Amino acid sequence: MKIKRSDRLVDITYYLLNHPHKLISLTYFAQKYKSAKSSISEDLTIIKRTFETNGFGFIDTLPGAAGGVRFTPSIPADEAKVYVEDLCAYMTSKERLLPGGYVYLSDILGDPEILQQAGRIIAAEYKDKNVTAVMTIATKGVPIAQAVANYLNIPFVIVRRDSKITEGSTVSINYVSGSSDRIEKMELSKRSLPSGSRVLIVDDFMKGGGTVNGMRSMVEEFDSETVGVTVFAEAAYTDNKETEDYTSLIRVNGIDLRNRTMEVGLGSYFD
Amino acid sequence: MKIKRSDRLVDITYYLLNHPHKLISLTYFAQKYKSAKSSISEDLTIIKRTFETNGFGFIDTLPGAAGGVRFTPSIPADEAKVYVEDLCAYMTSKERLLPGGYVYLSDILGDPEILQQAGRIIAAEYKDKNVTAVMTIATKGVPIAQAVANYLNIPFVIVRRDSKITEGSTVSINYVSGSSDRIEKMELSKRSLPSGSRVLIVDDFMKGGGTVNGMRSMVEEFDSETVGVTVFAEAAYTDNKETEDYTSLIRVNGIDLRNRTMEVGLGSYFD
Repeated sequence: MKIKRSDRLVDITYYLLNHPHKLISLTYFAQKYKSAKSSISEDLTIIKRTFETNGFGFIDTLPGAAGGVRFTPSIPADEAKVYVEDLCAYMTSKERLLPGGYVYLSDILGDPEILQQAGRIIAAEYKDKNVTAVMTIATKGVPIAQAVANYLNIPFVIVRRDSKITEGSTVSINYVSGSSDRIEKMELSKRSLPSGSRVLIVDDFMKGGGTVNGMRSMVEEFDSETVGVTVFAEAAYTDNKETEDYTSLIRVNGIDLRNRTMEVGLGSYFD
Repeated sequence: MKIKRSDRLVDITYYLLNHPHKLISLTYFAQKYKSAKSSISEDLTIIKRTFETNGFGFIDTLPGAAGGVRFTPSIPADEAKVYVEDLCAYMTSKERLLPGGYVYLSDILGDPEILQQAGRIIAAEYKDKNVTAVMTIATKGVPIAQAVANYLNIPFVIVRRDSKITEGSTVSINYVSGSSDRIEKMELSKRSLPSGSRVLIVDDFMKGGGTVNGMRSMVEEFDSETVGVTVFAEAAYTDNKETEDYTSLIRVNGIDLRNRTMEVGLGSYFD
């Protein structure tokens, strides 16, 4: 039975959203709906118009036998800015301030809707950079890295501070943790990252930047390249940053532990 | 400007997929598109037909002033079964076998498409159980828990074996780890789980079940209720299971370390 245009529009939208960054042959849809490719092309024109008008991302159709359609998720700059500004306001609560100038973020990093928007925003920055893997460090970097990996539709790998038997053999490096000035160790399963990977490093919170530098070294150990570094939030009041070339969504500009207040603003992503 | 039906269908589909389990007033869509509610109702009839025919889940429309539309993600039983059978075949590789009878799963638990399907399958089981939070334990349970939380659109909380300053004050419990017969400790940030929560416990791999039992005790410490326990994979060859009432997607039925083979099959989810 032939499928109506209205039903095709709903089904193709579902499919594209679940397969971002993948090139899908028009033949796939034509066979699924027993429709002419010209009809599918018209469907895609409608979907492209709606996606691009609403800022969901880009729909590209590539002609020819090896061609097809690809959905690249994105977000308009102004929408991202408004979203993160709202998030900053939500973050500015004295209950979040912890001893040592740390900020409680576990609720935010456990909220699916926030994670998805943050993942979409970060993925938008790297959508054309041919990233092949996202790297993060256990435990709190995982949710944000996973959200980014979802939108880029690439695997993510988890560096650990403690080796686990379930990882198999690992590559281990030492790094200087800026905040504690100690030598620490991080490990990554040997089989988890192919050589020649193009890696996006993602973490939840950056103070000195030592951990991110450790991950940069780890990427080198795997004969791979760091394409970018993005953190959800950074402590901008520490002036001993040991790393450069990163973006943050949110900057914690200052904390006053005595009065239990903090000032939070847009990160370098928006500079 | 009025928005055409075809464009509305694409936009409403996008919105519903990004807001599962949320009741959305028809007025929201009517105002957004400057359309009559009756037109929106017709749109939803088309979307409902396509979603339910293709097994994406259920579209319910509730009448009245407090009503609206709600998308509940699901997956047809046969589709879930075929998917997990394919996953079992993919898992059965001698390279996955590690000393001590552990199985390397990090690549699978770092693959967004696998995680999303697994999350969708697990969420389908609990879609009508009024779960309010997903609980898991660091680190390897996080990706699968996050995927489930995405589909249920509820927060997830991460129990840790080591306390971190960034968690604030924690509740700590001792538990017996079956596989090592040792007393271990797990902690959860006090502010992360409200009392009266209805908790779904999700983990990546179960051997003895001691860790899951620990999390059950943790749920009680927060004056909350464990609604269910699901693991991605279980070692079915260990007969000293200390926990009951759980489901698994995959069973590792037997391993032969000498010949480096293992037998993997459908888990109790499909019994």
